[in-house]
Amino acid sequence: MRLSRYFLPTLKETPSEAEIVSHRLMLRAGMIRQHTSGIYSWLPLGLRVLRAIEQIVREEQDRAGAQEILMPTVQSAELWRESGRYDDYGKEMLRIVDRHERDMLYGPTHEEVVTDIFRKNIQSYRDLPKNLYQIHWKFRDEVRPRFGVMRGREFLMKDGYSFDLDPLAARRAYYRMFVAYLRTFHRLGLKAIPMAADTGPIGGSLSHEFIILAETGESAVFCHKDLLDKTPPQNVDYDGDLEPIFKEWTSLYAATDEKHGPDHGVPEGDLVSARGIEVGHIFNFGTKYSVPMGATVTTQDGSSVPVHMGSYGIGVSRLVGGIIEASHDDAGIIWPDSVAPFQVALVNLKAGDAQTDAACADLETRLAAAGLSVLIDDTDERPGAKFATQDLIGLPWQLIVGPKGLARGVVELKRRATGERHEVTVESALAHLTGTGA
Amino acid sequence: MRLSRYFLPTLKETPSEAEIVSHRLMLRAGMIRQHTSGIYSWLPLGLRVLRAIEQIVREEQDRAGAQEILMPTVQSAELWRESGRYDDYGKEMLRIVDRHERDMLYGPTHEEVVTDIFRKNIQSYRDLPKNLYQIHWKFRDEVRPRFGVMRGREFLMKDGYSFDLDPLAARRAYYRMFVAYLRTFHRLGLKAIPMAADTGPIGGSLSHEFIILAETGESAVFCHKDLLDKTPPQNVDYDGDLEPIFKEWTSLYAATDEKHGPDHGVPEGDLVSARGIEVGHIFNFGTKYSVPMGATVTTQDGSSVPVHMGSYGIGVSRLVGGIIEASHDDAGIIWPDSVAPFQVALVNLKAGDAQTDAACADLETRLAAAGLSVLIDDTDERPGAKFATQDLIGLPWQLIVGPKGLARGVVELKRRATGERHEVTVESALAHLTGTGA
Repeated sequence: MRLSRYFLPTLKETPSEAEIVSHRLMLRAGMIRQHTSGIYSWLPLGLRVLRAIEQIVREEQDRAGAQEILMPTVQSAELWRESGRYDDYGKEMLRIVDRHERDMLYGPTHEEVVTDIFRKNIQSYRDLPKNLYQIHWKFRDEVRPRFGVMRGREFLMKDGYSFDLDPLAARRAYYRMFVAYLRTFHRLGLKAIPMAADTGPIGGSLSHEFIILAETGESAVFCHKDLLDKTPPQNVDYDGDLEPIFKEWTSLYAATDEKHGPDHGVPEGDLVSARGIEVGHIFNFGTKYSVPMGATVTTQDGSSVPVHMGSYGIGVSRLVGGIIEASHDDAGIIWPDSVAPFQVALVNLKAGDAQTDAACADLETRLAAAGLSVLIDDTDERPGAKFATQDLIGLPWQLIVGPKGLARGVVELKRRATGERHEVTVESALAHLTGTGA
Repeated sequence: MRLSRYFLPTLKETPSEAEIVSHRLMLRAGMIRQHTSGIYSWLPLGLRVLRAIEQIVREEQDRAGAQEILMPTVQSAELWRESGRYDDYGKEMLRIVDRHERDMLYGPTHEEVVTDIFRKNIQSYRDLPKNLYQIHWKFRDEVRPRFGVMRGREFLMKDGYSFDLDPLAARRAYYRMFVAYLRTFHRLGLKAIPMAADTGPIGGSLSHEFIILAETGESAVFCHKDLLDKTPPQNVDYDGDLEPIFKEWTSLYAATDEKHGPDHGVPEGDLVSARGIEVGHIFNFGTKYSVPMGATVTTQDGSSVPVHMGSYGIGVSRLVGGIIEASHDDAGIIWPDSVAPFQVALVNLKAGDAQTDAACADLETRLAAAGLSVLIDDTDERPGAKFATQDLIGLPWQLIVGPKGLARGVVELKRRATGERHEVTVESALAHLTGTGA
């Protein structure tokens, strides 16, 4: 993509309405624009990051045996009356009346809809287990939306729902998602800590929040220092016993501010106090929805039992902000490689100069052939302005090409995360970026 | 994917609520389920098709220089008051009042939102042309939703918007989308005919509908027979002059029922009467929104002019039904290769038989390694039931593996579209499917 054509309205000034760094940087980097309070449009650069995160979430869900579906955003109120949550939900639920005066709502969550799908289509224990998820837009009418996409009203979420024959199988389904979540956040370049949580309006007995650590995080969290060094397993057999992994991660102390107390039992010096952002929440709530909604299966002996369920959420649009909170500096965003909107910024220091243009065109072709996504700065801005824009939007690599360097056979390769810059030959830069050596 | 685990609730009976064949087949093939009137959930098989279509639409938009963004589904009524369309739109617009008593709506289209983005972020002729598109859910509160996803209330659409300095540049933008649409529908395996259209509530002077031909189409259409043989250009230079392609396609007679009249001027014998389904609609409407909303740019000489716009829609979820209308037989759906939910059905005729299972596992591995998506029927259904299910869901290829054939070193390869079946060796089947010969 050529920057001269790209819709990337960056801002030099810090927008006054943004209270936190991720919101400021997303506005400045031309990733989003506010439509109205708590509702945003995603511009090309922001959407690429959103899609990259979405794809990693999807791959890890699929790997764990979940199957993707897509439920409507606009739901009938009827199902919520059946589950008993219609009146409970309060003003956060965006209520709608359609032209035929039927009560509808913009789904803040989908337990009712998915339970309805289940009960109408699955009748036998032989069809279990099932885990159905979607990645879709939801609406919660927050009183005071703020922090950009971190607490918006319309937001993108991965919500999944598991269905099992009995509590033991449901617990195994819960472990699968627990491990899939560890892997997901790790791939996103985040340090995520699972913490025992209250179940709130979703209900149930077993629940964990996944909190990512960021210096500018919204809340204080506490955990045993050994949790910071843990990484999730590289290869997981999701048909095998995952309880050991679950125990390994939950046996060490971790608690949010509300739950943290003096009886934490962690030796002095081992307790870490940090700041965090909730990006995922998983629940095992048994038969809370299947009983009132009549979602049953026949067992091997012919009897009928309510199905045991869990639900599993990841705040996909929130993660865009969360990753920035965890990875930025004074100059701008520092994208982890896995979610970067482009992998390489190819900075042409003298657009219009025939030799420099040709060198950039050649580099672009060869980088693209190696499967790398490239944003070429072919504008006529001054070098200083180009560098500032690139540091702001935070692509992992900057490949800087100018006539003086070319005369000496070199280009400059800069790693955004460390700021390290090296003058290297064109071939060496290509080899480094395409992973064929350096 | 193993069918024994897949959420594919096929139906033997024809659902009584479905009036048209695509609706019946989508329900029977377990692709969708109705949530409430005109609102559907997409089950795994249906979602795979929807995503495949979406991806082809996206690739052709990107190729034509359009840039993807994502605007909110819930919009503020304010902008619609500015454009003057808030009261015009009537009951088809789903109106919402939020907790702070602000008037909102679920977007039926996005001219206002995108014009607002434009006017706040683009000020100079140097930033033109721009074409911004999204693939997103919309809502139109139809009085009588019907025909499944063909006329739903919540539906997925590609809507794009072009911005140009003057009428001539806007016309070039229109041509780019005209050609991109020809290519898109061709890649989807459809015969699509552009027809001059009224502009309706969108407004403007130049407009075409894209109608795909299907025997069971919703309306009668008429065209010169030569249009049926035309295919869009394989390689398009979108920076070049596309008027010749536009003229080539629009110089031959084509009209919908409402516009068809006796003065069509087509020689007898050259006029084809067919049935069609509208799947795309493009508009050039000049300054209809930019003037009332103040979307202006400064020109090279420093003056300020309203930007010239067009909008371009493709009914993505509607296309799922449209493709089925155009491609099915009595036994079920016949997916074009480009949008098939899986490319190959690997039918294990004797699941549980060690040798057959091993042969299937080997085939699966090798097909997957070649980049093909495979649905394995590893259930213990009878062969007849398995064949019926496969013909119903309509994957392009069926690879049928049983102990008797294996004893003779052969498997059966069936092409769904033609019904042709051949006994071939395993190696020959693999070579054929992976395109390495046969």
